[in-house]
Amino acid sequence: MAWPNGGWRSSLGGQAIRAVVLLSGGLDSATLLRLVGSSGYTVYALSVDYGQRHREELGCAVRLAHEAGVADHVTLSLDLARFGGSALTSAAIPVPKNGLATGIPVTYVPARNTVLLSLALGWAEALGARDLFIGVNAVDYSGYPDCRPAFIESFQRLANLATRAGVEGGEFRVHAPLLAMSKAEIIRTGLRLGVDYGLTRSCYDLDAEGRGCGICDACRLRLAGFAENGMRDPAPYRGGGG
Amino acid sequence: MAWPNGGWRSSLGGQAIRAVVLLSGGLDSATLLRLVGSSGYTVYALSVDYGQRHREELGCAVRLAHEAGVADHVTLSLDLARFGGSALTSAAIPVPKNGLATGIPVTYVPARNTVLLSLALGWAEALGARDLFIGVNAVDYSGYPDCRPAFIESFQRLANLATRAGVEGGEFRVHAPLLAMSKAEIIRTGLRLGVDYGLTRSCYDLDAEGRGCGICDACRLRLAGFAENGMRDPAPYRGGGG
Repeated sequence: MAWPNGGWRSSLGGQAIRAVVLLSGGLDSATLLRLVGSSGYTVYALSVDYGQRHREELGCAVRLAHEAGVADHVTLSLDLARFGGSALTSAAIPVPKNGLATGIPVTYVPARNTVLLSLALGWAEALGARDLFIGVNAVDYSGYPDCRPAFIESFQRLANLATRAGVEGGEFRVHAPLLAMSKAEIIRTGLRLGVDYGLTRSCYDLDAEGRGCGICDACRLRLAGFAENGMRDPAPYRGGGG
Repeated sequence: MAWPNGGWRSSLGGQAIRAVVLLSGGLDSATLLRLVGSSGYTVYALSVDYGQRHREELGCAVRLAHEAGVADHVTLSLDLARFGGSALTSAAIPVPKNGLATGIPVTYVPARNTVLLSLALGWAEALGARDLFIGVNAVDYSGYPDCRPAFIESFQRLANLATRAGVEGGEFRVHAPLLAMSKAEIIRTGLRLGVDYGLTRSCYDLDAEGRGCGICDACRLRLAGFAENGMRDPAPYRGGGG
């Protein structure tokens, strides 16, 4: 497979280097977690309960972190729903189910990835880690502004001005190794690394039993990714499965 | 007086424009709040309970926001103490009281201002505001990496990549009008605008009654600022007052 963010493995010698990995509990970050762990990093997984509708993902994150044997997993609570402005945190804005829309989806959460990376940066600095991983990918950055490569590069520049590293030396690296992968490639990578996708959720509108709707943007992308791999999605769906 | 971040007032015509102001409840942000309000912005004040020792400041923030007649004041809780690494959030690291140290103070909270500005950005985007205000100033940026002008500029660039504005147009501006002011100038400005500094706290080591220690870095700077204005600090101190 390709390593889209080329060279990040090469920073590892024989010794364990700490990395902070943003873990939502969805398909992408579950894959990312294993990818980073399999590259020899000592993994610190960070999840954020920001009032998202799909909170079932947070329980998935706990199970995924445990299965992956991370050094530590923190779930921070942060009430971004207080700000409003997104279908993902507001019951007043419905999740769209009419196929993939153009433009910025209403499920975009204002400044979400900026907030998530900031928190990852804070933990990394306290840990002495220099590597941050986020599971953004190409399919998303067509719609979400904070999934674009220019955003990731800009955050890395900021990180090196914002911290002790910027004053005392050392350098933060923000990695997005899924950036150029299709959903099918991400799934293929994860299967090779032993990710149990039955433990992941991606739907923006899960029911009380944690079953996906099968028709929101996130479900469509996910189901298509498994179909391209000739597989049935092991996660539960209200209609009866992928 | 000078407007160090020149030109930000000129963006205002007769109509009220929304601004998000980071309000810790300390001397600097209390001044900032009045400065922004007196410039014609409709003010949305954001405070963050991040596990800081000096939490009395958060009660001050509530009173200051009320007195200033802001449109809304939100206090978000966020457990940055979980990450450790700072005397300001960890009881295990003592607050230094041996005068102003060189280098980065142990009271530096990893990535704090990055996190605070990210949250302000999220709220601003949800509100349709384009102006963020943060009360960093010159005395601080000699020690804290995330109080430097280059950090503020870098965050502004990030903000315009991270958000709808970056895709759909419009532009965020990150203002730090106290940046080039001395503590004495900040106090002089606030007094002119009617800030009640008796409602503010700055000490890193307040006692249970909310009285300052008088000897930590924050107290020394503050007391010297009032002394330069030929005034006694109206905030309470354990020794009996400034």
